Amino acid sequence: MPTISVDSGSVKIECKPGQSLLDALLDANVAVDNPCNGKGTCGKCRVKVVSENPVAPTETERRLLSAKEIEAGVRLACMVKPETDMDIVSMHRERKHEVLTTGLLPEFEYDPDISKRTFTIERPTLEDQTPFEDQACAQLGVDALSAEVLIDAGLVPGEFTAVFHDGEVVQIERGDTTDELYGVAIDIGTTTVVCELVNLATGEVLADASQINAQKVFGLDVLTRITYELEHPDNGIANLRKVMVKSINGMFDELCEETGIPRNRIYEIAVGANCTMMHMLLGVDAHGIGKAPFAPAFARAKDLPARAIGIEAAPGARLYCLPHVSAYIGADIVAGAYVCDLHNVKNNVLFIDIGTNGEIVLSKQGQLLSCSCAAGPALEGMNISAGMRAAEGAIEEITITEDGNQFAIIGGDVEPQGLCGSGILAVLRELVRCGFVRKNGAFVKLDRLPEDDYRRKMLIEHEDGKRSFVLVDGAEPMLVTQGDVRQVQLAKGAILSGFMALLNKAGIGMDDLDQVIIAGQFGAHLTASSITGTGILPEEVEDRIVYAGNTSKTGAYMALMSGEVKRGMERLAHEMDYMELGATENYERLFSQCMMFPDVSKRKEG
Amino acid sequence: MPTISVDSGSVKIECKPGQSLLDALLDANVAVDNPCNGKGTCGKCRVKVVSENPVAPTETERRLLSAKEIEAGVRLACMVKPETDMDIVSMHRERKHEVLTTGLLPEFEYDPDISKRTFTIERPTLEDQTPFEDQACAQLGVDALSAEVLIDAGLVPGEFTAVFHDGEVVQIERGDTTDELYGVAIDIGTTTVVCELVNLATGEVLADASQINAQKVFGLDVLTRITYELEHPDNGIANLRKVMVKSINGMFDELCEETGIPRNRIYEIAVGANCTMMHMLLGVDAHGIGKAPFAPAFARAKDLPARAIGIEAAPGARLYCLPHVSAYIGADIVAGAYVCDLHNVKNNVLFIDIGTNGEIVLSKQGQLLSCSCAAGPALEGMNISAGMRAAEGAIEEITITEDGNQFAIIGGDVEPQGLCGSGILAVLRELVRCGFVRKNGAFVKLDRLPEDDYRRKMLIEHEDGKRSFVLVDGAEPMLVTQGDVRQVQLAKGAILSGFMALLNKAGIGMDDLDQVIIAGQFGAHLTASSITGTGILPEEVEDRIVYAGNTSKTGAYMALMSGEVKRGMERLAHEMDYMELGATENYERLFSQCMMFPDVSKRKEG
Repeated sequence: MPTISVDSGSVKIECKPGQSLLDALLDANVAVDNPCNGKGTCGKCRVKVVSENPVAPTETERRLLSAKEIEAGVRLACMVKPETDMDIVSMHRERKHEVLTTGLLPEFEYDPDISKRTFTIERPTLEDQTPFEDQACAQLGVDALSAEVLIDAGLVPGEFTAVFHDGEVVQIERGDTTDELYGVAIDIGTTTVVCELVNLATGEVLADASQINAQKVFGLDVLTRITYELEHPDNGIANLRKVMVKSINGMFDELCEETGIPRNRIYEIAVGANCTMMHMLLGVDAHGIGKAPFAPAFARAKDLPARAIGIEAAPGARLYCLPHVSAYIGADIVAGAYVCDLHNVKNNVLFIDIGTNGEIVLSKQGQLLSCSCAAGPALEGMNISAGMRAAEGAIEEITITEDGNQFAIIGGDVEPQGLCGSGILAVLRELVRCGFVRKNGAFVKLDRLPEDDYRRKMLIEHEDGKRSFVLVDGAEPMLVTQGDVRQVQLAKGAILSGFMALLNKAGIGMDDLDQVIIAGQFGAHLTASSITGTGILPEEVEDRIVYAGNTSKTGAYMALMSGEVKRGMERLAHEMDYMELGATENYERLFSQCMMFPDVSKRKEG
Repeated sequence: MPTISVDSGSVKIECKPGQSLLDALLDANVAVDNPCNGKGTCGKCRVKVVSENPVAPTETERRLLSAKEIEAGVRLACMVKPETDMDIVSMHRERKHEVLTTGLLPEFEYDPDISKRTFTIERPTLEDQTPFEDQACAQLGVDALSAEVLIDAGLVPGEFTAVFHDGEVVQIERGDTTDELYGVAIDIGTTTVVCELVNLATGEVLADASQINAQKVFGLDVLTRITYELEHPDNGIANLRKVMVKSINGMFDELCEETGIPRNRIYEIAVGANCTMMHMLLGVDAHGIGKAPFAPAFARAKDLPARAIGIEAAPGARLYCLPHVSAYIGADIVAGAYVCDLHNVKNNVLFIDIGTNGEIVLSKQGQLLSCSCAAGPALEGMNISAGMRAAEGAIEEITITEDGNQFAIIGGDVEPQGLCGSGILAVLRELVRCGFVRKNGAFVKLDRLPEDDYRRKMLIEHEDGKRSFVLVDGAEPMLVTQGDVRQVQLAKGAILSGFMALLNKAGIGMDDLDQVIIAGQFGAHLTASSITGTGILPEEVEDRIVYAGNTSKTGAYMALMSGEVKRGMERLAHEMDYMELGATENYERLFSQCMMFPDVSKRKEG
């Protein structure tokens, strides 16, 4: 059995034959991050191999690690199956400091709304019977303490610490607790919720936790959940809030257990989310978002006591909900625009978050115009014959060659189980590139292909005349059907038409666009070649694409660390224009033009 | 059976022999106020007798009704036992408008902090997707709605009513509810809690309710309740709050049932109370009030959501707690000083609330100086051999004559059961007047009295040489002991020394004092002759005494009806000086001087 020496030999462990390094480390209680439980999707179980390592990095590692990291010997523990002795360095602690740098994080000054100051209640004398509140106020420089703060404070002669929020005392604690100052940044996606425990004094991210959005039991997308609200007028809104708050409290448990920080030392929670998720977190009726003409109950930032909705943190903890622009340009997008500094750029930058709804923000030299495209769930693997979520066995990349299909599969060397979102786009890109699918979205007819064309054996024709592409052959072949292609076509048409409408409205040509920023957890998995190869975005922008990561969470983090950032986001949300595509002239025509797949013949010529 | 014709014959009822008019009216479902349930203590079951009435008013009626009222034929229904037919006019409705006028109520402008305004949410269009919040804000002229308001609002297109508190929206209701605008004024006494439902639009008092302070199970006085808190650190504070809030919610039930007004239309609750009761209402640690040197946790006014402490009213209802000056000059006294306009008087006025603690405020041409005297519970009938609370059978007035004792007893012609507070003072006054008790508080020695002195048979000498006064003779005679006299002597010494210390400090002589205002429910039962006859206050002020009633409740009512009054009370509390008697030079000497009872011989000469 190979021996693994960890951290200069501070721990030595044996690795069983065929066992992954991750499992060996976990068996030996060596701390290693493992959010996806070894599925090769999260890229967080990093270790640095300092001895010689004869095994080349897998495709998964190449995707999830940077070239620089691989150069430095960084590997994913879940992908490495040691065959010889190895010296490794655990990256567990180091990673904690790195979490945020996995996405874009601009420089900004730390000045959180939450701060602490100590004060002392003196024992009264017959000559000086100043009430305890007045003693506190004089030392803290405030006019009064709220009744709620007083009720929890338990003031007696002695030392105390006041927790300030934006200049107001929100909590009083016994003794000097100035060293303990924590907050949580949350991104509530329709699918996934991510929490990050932050040391407000240093800006350090101490731990993170994530869960599938617990509201999924009430529907996978926002419209289904709004329908649930409408169909359950008595308790629908309350139920949606309840499961979300419970899930957040559960993640707080994890964060606190992992770090040993008590939850009553968490003083502010900042949330980035789309507009529907924010309504459903607070328990505000979201039905106005559910059908055209769309109007949310609220779009402004909200600041409230966290306990008002049942979040279990410090008794005086605040909940800051980032501002929205409209029903379908939510706080997640406002956060992204702010994080990417769109309001300050001097050139023309387009920001896009691809998902069930594609949100696009165009910055024309700092002037912001946005739209939202109802792409539908196809891009995330829903309503696709072989669709599945990004889990073990999901095809995430494909190359079609004359000799067959070459796959990259989540989990590595396992049987393909289906297509996740990035896989679907990759397949479509390949089908278009290889001429299986024509510009209008129809599969090429078999009789149009030469007798010896390799594509003939990859296509089957059904009894009804429709054709499908054979993704994986076998007794029950895995197919990509004409219907699947249509689903993707609708999605890509929706996004591309939004993109074009924004450029048209702003009077900007394709050549004037300097940068395209792909944001969001889903977008991070889409390659530039898939995005332009399927025509979601035009070919011309392929080399201008950059990735910004989870900018919603980053925006929440920044709001937590700076009151000025909050004000800046609120101004940005107020100043960003929104364009309702459905109300745009000739939108229907633009949409049908944008349904066209790229013209490969032209591309080859170009 | 005599027939009673009510309201010009609109109702005719039969009165059974010996039945009180009150019982007859109640049997016939004729509305009549009856808070004390016919005990002859509250003076509220007034009716006007318009036919000739051969029966003279009882002593109770003379005490509880003004001469002018008696002149006009007003009687207490509980005291009248009709023997002949009578025509009466029900005063039930009229009284509702009069409740407040039973105490002093200065003129002031109605401008309550609570107000309402309607607005309309328009159905959105594709061209105008303004969020519902923004539509509301534009119409209401506010910057934003709080998350808590939005959560409860359920905004959809249609008409709504916003409830404002001091310019901020605290609640939103469906439809036009501007006609429904109610508040509750509460006086929380250590012994009794009184609630008054007020129409905030008109100032009309619609109903009232009162209960014995539910915290009495944790002790009859503030010190015992604070001790309970100290001895139950886990849940003492919470228990005290719980029973108080439950009792208030119960009285709200009564008020709402009586008037048909739903409790979610009660938007503000204003509370006058002493400092300890206010701490215990909110659930703030009161232990600093419990022992010298006294300092409360807070003294300032508090404004908080009523639901924060569990009061069941409108979801956005506010709770306003009037400000205090110090641990023992509470909001009840601040309210009283404000109601009596002490801060604006041009002469010298002394305000005194006699109870377990005697609070005194001296206004020297508008400049306020206060002190608090620990009188102990004797004046309220506690620690007195024959003491009892003011209930049926309690002696409330006495005249000692050579032929025996003449009593006024609560409930009228019933056997005397004991002495209530006003009875104790009356007895002491008589004992001093008739020379049973000497200036130093000792009973006169039997052998000092002439053989034929009528007092000889009214005094008994015990085996230990101590003497007692025989209040009611019999197998087990009801006595007033030397110990009882000492208790009263301590109480009166405490109050008189506070009175004298204040005058000394302000440099005001007895002749410069223009008015003495007696406030409080207990004080209202004490006659001027008892107050000066026992030497609680000097003889000189007897003809300057006036009564102000429950000024704490009146102050709460005024705060409810005017934001300006709240600010005025807060200024007054801030500007009122407080003098700690225990820290006053030569206080011990002053106190022992003030223990002396009035010198009857001098009085007779004077």
